[in-house]
Amino acid sequence: MRLDHIGIAVKNLEDSMRFYGEVLGLELEGVEEVPEESVKVAMFRVGETFIELLQGTSPESAISKFIEKRGEGIHHIAMRVENVDKVVEDLKGRGAVLVYDKARLVSKGSRKINFVHPRTTGGILLEVVERVGQRD
Amino acid sequence: MRLDHIGIAVKNLEDSMRFYGEVLGLELEGVEEVPEESVKVAMFRVGETFIELLQGTSPESAISKFIEKRGEGIHHIAMRVENVDKVVEDLKGRGAVLVYDKARLVSKGSRKINFVHPRTTGGILLEVVERVGQRD
Repeated sequence: MRLDHIGIAVKNLEDSMRFYGEVLGLELEGVEEVPEESVKVAMFRVGETFIELLQGTSPESAISKFIEKRGEGIHHIAMRVENVDKVVEDLKGRGAVLVYDKARLVSKGSRKINFVHPRTTGGILLEVVERVGQRD
Repeated sequence: MRLDHIGIAVKNLEDSMRFYGEVLGLELEGVEEVPEESVKVAMFRVGETFIELLQGTSPESAISKFIEKRGEGIHHIAMRVENVDKVVEDLKGRGAVLVYDKARLVSKGSRKINFVHPRTTGGILLEVVERVGQRD
C-alpha cells in the first residue's frame, strides 16, 4: 500500500493550478474530465505521489457539495493497491465501512476505486485505487 | 520538493493508531511528543512518505482548536525541501503568505519548519520542512 494521491477540492481549477504549478513549481502531469464523478481534475507530480486538484462540474458533484459545506481544502487521500476488490474485502472484514458496494471503474476503465467512509477512519475520506493493467 | 507527510488531526491518538496500524496495516515508524507545537504524534510509513497523526496536548494547541472548529480530519500536508529558508524566501517572492516570520526548529532541532497560510493555497495549510543534517 502506498500513497497514490491527495485530492484537493477547489472552486476554480485554473486559479489553483497557478498556485501549485507556478508558485510551488510542481510538475503538471495532466488535466482530465471524469464524468462518472462529475469532476475536472489536474494532477501534479510530487516525488512518487500526486496532488490531484478537483473542481466539480455540476452542483450535484461530491466536490461541489464538499466546498459548499466546508470550503476549499483537502477532500480525500488515496492509497494505491494492487487488487482493490481484495483490499476492500479485507478492510470490511476488519470493520471498515465502504462507500460503494462494489468498486467502480472510472477514467475509461483505467482505475478501479472505492472509498472507506470517514466514520471508520476518524474523519478522513480514504480512497483505495487500483491502476488497471499497471503493476503497483 | 516531495511529499514529506500528511498531518491528520485526531482526538485520541491510540484509537486512530489502531485504525492506521491494525485495519490499514501501515507500519508504525514512531511516536513522539513535540512540546513546541503542543502535540503528540504518531508516524506511519506509506511508501516514501508518512501519515502523521496529531493529538493536541493542551486546549491551546492548534490541533485541539482545529478539531473544535472542524472535527477530526486532515490538518496539513508537508513538503520536504532541502533548504527551508531559501524556499520560504522564494515563496514569499511569488506572493505566498507564511505563518511564521522565521522557520522554527522543532523535534530537538531535527526539523526546521514553516507553514504557507491557507489563504494563499486555497484552503490548505501547507508545511515546508527541512530535515536538518539529512540530505533530501
